[in-house]
Amino acid sequence: MDLYGEGFNPVLVFNAEKRRRDMHADPDLARYRELVTWADKLVFIYPLFWGRPPAMLLGFIDRMFAAGFAYRDKGGLFPEGLLKGKSVVCVSTMKGPARYPLLWLHNAHKIIMRRALFRFVGIKKVKFFEFGRMESPKGRQKEKLRKVYRYFRTVAR
Amino acid sequence: MDLYGEGFNPVLVFNAEKRRRDMHADPDLARYRELVTWADKLVFIYPLFWGRPPAMLLGFIDRMFAAGFAYRDKGGLFPEGLLKGKSVVCVSTMKGPARYPLLWLHNAHKIIMRRALFRFVGIKKVKFFEFGRMESPKGRQKEKLRKVYRYFRTVAR
Repeated sequence: MDLYGEGFNPVLVFNAEKRRRDMHADPDLARYRELVTWADKLVFIYPLFWGRPPAMLLGFIDRMFAAGFAYRDKGGLFPEGLLKGKSVVCVSTMKGPARYPLLWLHNAHKIIMRRALFRFVGIKKVKFFEFGRMESPKGRQKEKLRKVYRYFRTVAR
Repeated sequence: MDLYGEGFNPVLVFNAEKRRRDMHADPDLARYRELVTWADKLVFIYPLFWGRPPAMLLGFIDRMFAAGFAYRDKGGLFPEGLLKGKSVVCVSTMKGPARYPLLWLHNAHKIIMRRALFRFVGIKKVKFFEFGRMESPKGRQKEKLRKVYRYFRTVAR
């Protein structure tokens, strides 16, 4: 699905009509929940803006990964992850060199996605592709695409 | 300013009418740019969702911190920061304990804000308040507010 193409609204709202406890059943998101429930593997493709995914994707997460759908509070620090058994692939691109998030940002992007989000909802298997120099003619863009294709051919077997 | 209250649209769009190179002069954001230009100190107040600010604030950043307004590319890895000399205060709140982002997320939230964003646009002085257990009756909410008041009273002198 293409969140921009679909005009997805990434703003999570709580108010008298949209109560937090009902978020997991928000009718606007029913189709997305069905897709996530059905899928064994979730693939996120996004550019890095300021060291993290764009607001559009993060807002999709804010709205979708609700208590009662993605996790269930058990009173302790960590909840019961309701998306257990699924795996995730994140393909991210950036203008600068691919080593920048690792060396300068201490992998903050991966920590935010892997630990703060996926681990919390029960997803342990997260594979990252981080591709840099996307605007450079020397960036070997085709080779990057091939790398992703190869990976998916292998896991699809 | 209250981004939710104002109905801010956090979706950054590039297309034939909204070109990336014109983003720094987007007329929809003129008033916000004036405020940022005028201010010596920028204060961001937000809850942590999934270890980082909500999509609403990150979308404000995606749209506002454009090349030509917040920084100027010089060809190298780091640009010239155009917001030099300003300072930032981030007040963030969370449901879990305040030590969680530090111990479990390796301060990824601070790295994303301080290094990936503010440092890049020339802002070196960034102060964080991270308050946890916001929904707990034992959370000493008034004490947290006093801490913030005290800080601002001191810096305002």
